[in-house]
Order: sequence, then structure tokens, then C-alpha cells
Amino acid sequence: MNRMKWLSLGIVLCSAIVGISRADEALEKDAQDPNQWVLPLGSYSGIRHSKLSQITTKNADKLHVAWTMSTGTLRGQEGQPLVVGNMMYFESSYPNFVYAINLDNVGQIVWKFAPEQDKFSPSVACCDLVNKGVAYADGKILVTTLDTHVYALDAKTGKVVWSAQNGDPQQGQTMTMAPLIVHDKVIVGISGGEYGVRGYLSAFDLKSGKLVWRANNVGPDADILFDPVKTLDGATGQPVGKDSSLKTWNQDEWKLGGGTTWGWYTYDPQLNLVYYGSGNPGTWNPSQRAGDNKWSTALIARNPDTGMAAWSYQMTPHDAWDYDGINESVLTDSVVDGQTIPTLTHFDRNGFSYLLDRRNGKLLRAHKFDSTTNWAKEIDLKTGRPVLNPDKMTKEDVNVKDICPAAQGAKNHQPASYDPKTKLFYVGTNHICMDYQAFSVKYRGGFPYVGATLSMFPADHGNIRGRLIAFDSVTGQTKWAVNEMFQVYSGPLTTDAGVLFYGTLDGWFKAADQATGKTLYQFKAPSGIIGNPMTYMHKGKQYIAVLTGVGGWAAIGLAEGLTKGTEGLGAVGLTTSLSDYTNLGGTLVVFSLD
Amino acid sequence: MNRMKWLSLGIVLCSAIVGISRADEALEKDAQDPNQWVLPLGSYSGIRHSKLSQITTKNADKLHVAWTMSTGTLRGQEGQPLVVGNMMYFESSYPNFVYAINLDNVGQIVWKFAPEQDKFSPSVACCDLVNKGVAYADGKILVTTLDTHVYALDAKTGKVVWSAQNGDPQQGQTMTMAPLIVHDKVIVGISGGEYGVRGYLSAFDLKSGKLVWRANNVGPDADILFDPVKTLDGATGQPVGKDSSLKTWNQDEWKLGGGTTWGWYTYDPQLNLVYYGSGNPGTWNPSQRAGDNKWSTALIARNPDTGMAAWSYQMTPHDAWDYDGINESVLTDSVVDGQTIPTLTHFDRNGFSYLLDRRNGKLLRAHKFDSTTNWAKEIDLKTGRPVLNPDKMTKEDVNVKDICPAAQGAKNHQPASYDPKTKLFYVGTNHICMDYQAFSVKYRGGFPYVGATLSMFPADHGNIRGRLIAFDSVTGQTKWAVNEMFQVYSGPLTTDAGVLFYGTLDGWFKAADQATGKTLYQFKAPSGIIGNPMTYMHKGKQYIAVLTGVGGWAAIGLAEGLTKGTEGLGAVGLTTSLSDYTNLGGTLVVFSLD
Repeated sequence: MNRMKWLSLGIVLCSAIVGISRADEALEKDAQDPNQWVLPLGSYSGIRHSKLSQITTKNADKLHVAWTMSTGTLRGQEGQPLVVGNMMYFESSYPNFVYAINLDNVGQIVWKFAPEQDKFSPSVACCDLVNKGVAYADGKILVTTLDTHVYALDAKTGKVVWSAQNGDPQQGQTMTMAPLIVHDKVIVGISGGEYGVRGYLSAFDLKSGKLVWRANNVGPDADILFDPVKTLDGATGQPVGKDSSLKTWNQDEWKLGGGTTWGWYTYDPQLNLVYYGSGNPGTWNPSQRAGDNKWSTALIARNPDTGMAAWSYQMTPHDAWDYDGINESVLTDSVVDGQTIPTLTHFDRNGFSYLLDRRNGKLLRAHKFDSTTNWAKEIDLKTGRPVLNPDKMTKEDVNVKDICPAAQGAKNHQPASYDPKTKLFYVGTNHICMDYQAFSVKYRGGFPYVGATLSMFPADHGNIRGRLIAFDSVTGQTKWAVNEMFQVYSGPLTTDAGVLFYGTLDGWFKAADQATGKTLYQFKAPSGIIGNPMTYMHKGKQYIAVLTGVGGWAAIGLAEGLTKGTEGLGAVGLTTSLSDYTNLGGTLVVFSLD
Repeated sequence: MNRMKWLSLGIVLCSAIVGISRADEALEKDAQDPNQWVLPLGSYSGIRHSKLSQITTKNADKLHVAWTMSTGTLRGQEGQPLVVGNMMYFESSYPNFVYAINLDNVGQIVWKFAPEQDKFSPSVACCDLVNKGVAYADGKILVTTLDTHVYALDAKTGKVVWSAQNGDPQQGQTMTMAPLIVHDKVIVGISGGEYGVRGYLSAFDLKSGKLVWRANNVGPDADILFDPVKTLDGATGQPVGKDSSLKTWNQDEWKLGGGTTWGWYTYDPQLNLVYYGSGNPGTWNPSQRAGDNKWSTALIARNPDTGMAAWSYQMTPHDAWDYDGINESVLTDSVVDGQTIPTLTHFDRNGFSYLLDRRNGKLLRAHKFDSTTNWAKEIDLKTGRPVLNPDKMTKEDVNVKDICPAAQGAKNHQPASYDPKTKLFYVGTNHICMDYQAFSVKYRGGFPYVGATLSMFPADHGNIRGRLIAFDSVTGQTKWAVNEMFQVYSGPLTTDAGVLFYGTLDGWFKAADQATGKTLYQFKAPSGIIGNPMTYMHKGKQYIAVLTGVGGWAAIGLAEGLTKGTEGLGAVGLTTSLSDYTNLGGTLVVFSLD
């Protein structure tokens, strides 16, 4: 190699390093600025708390709609906008339009991205055609689409910088999650747990879109990027050992093993670990898959640069209830037995909150956050395993009744909020139970691989299906709970002024007092809310923005146009009355004081 | 007949008469109550003016969004809600959902009607899948659907009382207009002028849904319900004579004669006459249809009980520009030559405002309300006919350039408002011109029978496509004009406090000072506005409600998902930049002061 070649290579390497450093640091710095909202969850820690305090418990009743914008789509809006500097970016439900708005002139759309999509993908999306939003880094907007594409768009122009394909809709794979950018990696997952998809996390290079690593959650060690010696099992505190996943499946069932990755991801820069949860094991019929089915329904910590797993903790070994473990891990400090330690709090579909030492996955506390939870009596802190209630174990061809929570979970993907001042979590929860009958199912690519019929109903057989709670994940105490008619499927936002924001499935956007849960202000939004309010400051004024647009699994009957009289059908029956209160339709609604 | 039979018949007749009287009188009475909005245009006279005055020029800047509701549909929302007592009713674009809301509890939908529709109908709707709203009478909500059904719903329950079919989508017939109820008749029309449909007005019995009469606008006297002796021609002041329509067509072309009836209808209880306009003649290629093509592009007054025409006045004989005459007739008193007489004011697509004596159709005044109008120099008051500009006459295979206004009209269907205090009309207008090339076309049922290609553009070749004007239909003077970037396709509402409300195609809802047109308040709505604001009072508070949701012919490119690069296509090219400002999506938005 001649000198010029070396020199030019040196320049490239150098600028690449500088570039990486800038993107990463800029994002971390911007994430500290309460005027902006640069990460899908607002921060790497996922606390969904803002330091803004212009809207207070005293003036929240003076809130008003500042401006609005239709998403141009009817299906459920699960995400939230980003605000980067003067610009707002958001993504609609399928067909996944992405919009850029200059906050100085909200009457105009700076650019719109309308991806060409594989028309097959809507037919294999289990639970509405949703999307959890875009990510930003280094002048790019990162987008996932239902047909498993990842796009990097120029944030200024909306032009495609690169695109990559992360899956195959023909095999039941889809994408609905928001990417997480760490260093120079775009981290995304895959959906399709109901189609026998074997889940994975992928990291694409931020600059080029090239796949850097991919880690499955079930399968051989080489696939799952688990080191038998170095990767720890949070339940035992021991190394996972060889074939930690393989040996928990009968024969080749792991190949259809589920453990998808459609939830939220968080990141600890100090430990350099990304945290996420894996979904239910493949087929909902537990009789077809003896064993723990590791590492489905587990929390996993990985090095973002290499994908190698530092530790894993399985919440629901041999999940027999579709207790998909994808819910977010919120990273905070907690005082446990007098010691302040870096923890991870995870509200699982299975009805338990988990408090782990996020350095090693060690289970510190586990509490029922919905008291009706009955599939397990408790989580044994010594073994890290649930103490099962044999009456509620499902099996092929038996209709097991009154299991709590239902498959939709005591909480689904709607992200929780944590206020560092009160040290409490504010969680949108479900309050629902189910009957569950497993049946034998054969795999065929691109066809449902479910293997169970369900019927869900309100836990108290009344008209309460959800609750907003303020919860202490160390003590397990519920400070307060507010009942809602439907599942609370919108992720709360807390703020330094003690005002909390969330939405309801029947279309009320609410500001509540964090101290009591009492509603301070409410507004009847165009549609039910499964999106997550965020906040930003523009020209000295605090705004709260939320995507309204009912849908998702919570409102799948409405989303799919299934009408009354279909009460028996899984999650559909739970919310047939929802059509008495709201309507499909995606709209961004932005609030402020006058 | 025995005595009992006579007696029972007597009772039936009696109650029928009482019933008729009640429905009719109640509606007239309710229409006088400014707290309600019981007729699509607010009143039989169509003035779209409210006596409410809580929102003033002083406090209008304090307006806020009170509540919202998605229509559940994406296509253009052309209508407006009704308010009857405590209830609000409105209809969405296709698939024509109808909603009932109790104003005491706007969080809940009292009932929703979702008609089963002929799936073929969307493919033959020329100009988006719109609807102009429901009507009310006698405890029933009257609904038209795109697939040409008329439904009478129980206003309390939404249950179908009766349904009737008024056309055949397979032949290109659709329905988008709001019904008008007069006495015991439900008066509706038909769309499909671009499919060779021969237009008619139908009257269904309010109680039973039976067709009582149907009057074509072109064809034999027996079809058009014109009396050669009694029916007057407004242009000449003379009886129309025998075969007044037939003799103005070559051969059988009248059978495909157009003259559809998709606009607004008004009614004068004193004269007992219903007023409406007829659409363009069949095929836009004038060379295929020599003659005046009567009674297309005409205003017609009919007896609502019998359908018989009292008079007719043709605005655009031998229409060679698609100057469809369906725009509304606003019924007021006017001082003409010192005499106060009952008049009808009609702002036509062809760029002229027409002032007629509504007793006999006599033309009193005609003025250009858009000064660029150049297809005719003037309307000769003596002959009642336009003085044509031969340069702008279109003919087969000639591309005639720079015709003003464009086919979309100097004003389209968006209804005007009239303030009895100022005696001015407030009109949303278009400011657009076109090139027009006719071509030969053969009829085939259910296929377009258009016969012209068009290209529309802003009249001044700039960025102004619409204007809101305050206009005197007697003097022809424009008191003021406010420019808008796009066609003003929302019907203004005036109020006794001198505040005017309208919406823009790019999504701004505006309150303006009627004295100047100056904006007092504006709000960025979820989507562009082609609906018509209405107002009502509930529990002492004045509300303004508007259906937002861009579409219609004005925004057909956006509605049909046609993207940039299609600038050549008729009306599409006119508004390709609209996607830089707004998005599809139907939402009811309701405003009030705090």
C-alpha cells in the first residue's frame, strides 16, 4: 500500500471515529436537554420524565389544544414524536408515513416520507398495524416499517440515506418497534411471535446501514451471542453455561422459538449495556414445547458494540400464558437493603414487577402490581423462579379458566414513567383475566403458529379494565390507583412540576396530579389513545404532544372492524363496547397553556 | 264500504295530516331557534347565518378547541353536523358512518350507523368519496349513502326505519348530497354527471320511504315535470313551451344528458317552492351535443308536493366548460330598483352571481364575482343569456387555453353565507383558470363519459387559488376579498356578532371580522377543511363545530394518493403542493370560548 492510500485511509478512519464520537455524545447531551425529546423514550434510561415545569398542578386546568395534525392513517398510533432542536418528527401507523415539522411554522410539513411497502406485511401483523416511532442520531431519522425495512433518512430533507431489510414478511416477520441508537449502531428488533418467528436483535451501522451483529434470543450459543462462562443467569447469579437455551427445548422446537423483540430498549452508558425483553416462546400451546424455553420471556443485557450478552433473566420459564416479556426496562438507582445500587425495573405482562441489579441481572425484588395475579403465588427471590399455581397451568385441550392476568398482560408495551423525586413508577396497567385453551398446531411459514384460543374479561367482571398506578418497585406498595373503563395503553409522562400526562383507550387525554392521580384537566381527543405523551419547550412555552388513534392489541376489534357479536374472540370481546366511545383515526394533538 | 272502514280510514287520514303538519311545522320552528341547527344549511333559506352572538370580534381570539371526534374515515368531509335539542348528528365520508352524540356527554357515542354498501360505488365517484351531511325531521335522521341509498334512522336509536334506493352505482350513479325535508317529503338528488347519468330530483315519503315523485332535468316534459304553459323560463319570462328540453339536444343525446343534482336545496314556505341547480350536460365534449342542452346548468324551482316545475333559468346554455350549475340558491329579500322583492342569489361555477326573482325566475342582476372570468363578457339581462367570448368556446380536438374560471368553478358547492344586517354575501371562492381540450367519447354504462382533458392553474399564475369575499349581489360590488393559497372550499358561517367562520384547504380554521375579513383567530386543524362550520348553543355556551378532513374535487390528488409529478392531470395539478401543508383524515372539531 502506498503512502497516499495509507493517508487517505487514516483520514477516513479518523473522521469515522470522530463521527461516531460526535453522534453518540451529541445524543446523550441532547437527551439531557429538557427542551428537546431526542430519544423515543425521552432518555436512554427510559424514565419518561421531564424536567420541564411550566405546566403545574395549579395551572394544568388552563391547558388547551395548541395545534393538531392528522397522521393520514386510521390504524393505531403507538408512538410519540421526537423534538430535535426546532424540528418535530413522527411516524404514523402503517403505511408508516414519517413527517418533519418545523415548530416555527406548524402549518407546513417540511417533508413527508411514504415508504413503498411489501403489501403482504399487514396480513401477518398480529395486533394491528402499529409503530412505536422514529429515532434520531447524527442528522438522520431512523425508521422501521411494518415490512421489516430500516430506513435512515436525512433529517433535513427526508431523503433516504440508506435502507436495510431486517426480516421477511412472507415468514410472518414484521417490525413495529422504535430503533435505539447507541454509539454508531442502530438497534432494532423483530416481531412475529405468533408466526413461529425466532426473535433477534439486530445492530446496523448508523453510517452505512450494514448489519454489524445479530443476536437471537433462543438457539445455539453462537446464535444467541451468550458466552457460557461470562454471560450470567440473573436467576442463579451463575454463568449460564453451555447451550443454555438449546437444552431448554424439546428437539428442534427452538427453531420456531419466538422470543421476539418488539418492545422498548434502554441503555446504560456507564455499563455500556443495552436492555430489552424477549417475547413469548413459539406456539402458545405449552404442551408442544417442554422445558423452560430459554431465553424467551427474558430480560437480556447486551453490549451494543458486539451484541454479546452480559446477563439474562427469565421471568416466565415455560410461558404457558403468552406472557411475552418485551416490556421496557427502566434504569434508575434504588435503595435496596440500605444500599443504593443501579437497578432495572420491569413491569411484566405476567403481573409482577421485577427489580434487578442491572450490572448482573440479579433479582432483588418481585411484586404483584395487580393483586389479582394468580398464575404464580410469588417469585422466589432465592431461585429467581415463579412459585406456580398448578390450577392455572395451561395444557393442550384443556380450557383453563380465570387466569389472571390475561395474555394481554397486567401491563403491555405502554412504557412506564419514573419520577426521581418521588422514586415512584407511574404505570398504565390492565386489569383483566382470561380463559385459555391450548391446542396442537403445525408450523407453516407465514401462517399463524398460535395454538391457543382465549377469552379475556375484566378482572372484577365489571366495567374496569385498566388502572393507572403509582408504584414503588422496591417495596411493592401501590401509592394510589385510578380506575379506567379500558386498559390504560398509553405510557404516562411525569414532569418536575408533579403533573402527569396520559391518555385513555376511550379517547380522554388527561393531566393528573402525581401526588394523588386526580385528574386536573381532560380533553376528548379525536380518537382513543395508545400513544405516549411527550413534552418539549419551544420559544419559552412548554408543550405536551400525543399521538391519538385507537388500535393495537388493546383495541384490535375496533382496528379490524370487528363489530359487536364477536365477544368470544380473544382480545376482541374485552373491548367490544369501545366503539360506543371512540373511533379510529390518527391525529397528533399538541397542548399548551394559553 | 262500511261505516267502520270509513271511520278507520278517517282516523288514518287525520293522523297522517296531523303528522305531516307536526313534522313540517316543528322543523320550521326549530330552524328559527339559533341554539339548534336542524337543517343542513341551518335554515330553509340557506343563508347560513346564526343569531348567536356570544363569540364577538372582541373575544374571538380567546376561542379554543372544546372537544373533538374522529369520523373514522380518511376521505374528504364536505358536510356539517346537525344539532337537534341536546343531540348532535353527523355523517362521515364513505363508508358514510353516521354518529349521534349527546351534547351533555360528548365522551360517548349514543349510536353509530355503518351502512352496508355496494363496494362498486367508490369506483364511480368522480370527485372523492364525500358526503354533505344528514337531515332531520319528525324524530328521524335522513341519510344518503354513496351507493345511492336513502335511509331514515330513528334519531333516538339509529335503527333503520326505512331505506330506499335512488339509483344504480353500476350505471355510475352515486349520492353525496344532504337531503332536504319539506312537508312529508325527503328530497334528494343524484350524482354521476361524468358517467352519462341523466339527473333527477326524487321525493320519498318521510313516513314510509316510498317514492312519491321523481323529476328529471333533461328529457321529455313528462319526465322533467315541466308544464309547457305554466312553467316559466326565467331568461325570457315566457312559458317554456312544449319539449323545452328535448328540442335543445341532438337526437337521443339527452338520454345521457347530465344535469345531475348533487348540490344544496333551499325552500320558500310562502311560495312553497324548492330551489336547486342542475349539473353540467352529459359529456364535457360540447361538439357531441349541439343546442342549449336544457335544463342542464339551470336553476329550477319545483313544488315539493308534486315535483312540478314553477320555473327554470339556465345559466350556461350549451355548457362547454363543465360549469355545472348545482351551486346553492340563497333566498333573501333584495332591494332592486327601489323595490323589495323576494330574490334568489346564486354564485355559479361560471364566475357570475345571479340575482333572480324567486317567484318567477326572472333574471334581475348578474355580475362577475371573480374579475378574471372570460368565457363570457356579461350576462345580457334582456335575453338572460351570456354574451360569449368566442375565443374561449371549446370544441372537439382543440386545446383552448386560459379559460377563466376553470371547470372547478369560480365557486364550487361550498355554500355561501348571507348576513341580513349587512345584506352582503360571504363566499368562499376559487381563483383559477384552465386549458380545456374536448375529445370524442362513446357511452358505456358505468364508465366515465367525460370527453375532455383539462389543466387547471391559479388565475394569476401565482400562489393564490382562492379568495374569501364579501359581495353585494345587487350591485356586484366586492366589499373586501381575502386571498388564500388554495381554493376556499369551506362554506362560511356568519353570526349576529359580526364574526365569520370558515376553513382553508391547508387546514386553518379561521374566525374573521365580517367588516374586513381580517383573521381574529386561527387554529391548525388536523386536516384541510372542505366542511362548513355551524354553530349552536349548549348550556349557555356558544359552540362552533366544523368537520375537518381534506378531499373533494379541490384536493382530489391528495384524496386519491396521487403524488407530485402528476401536475398535468386536470384538477390534480392545481393542488400538488397541498401535501406540503396537510394530510387526509376526518375529525369533528368543536370550538368555544373558555
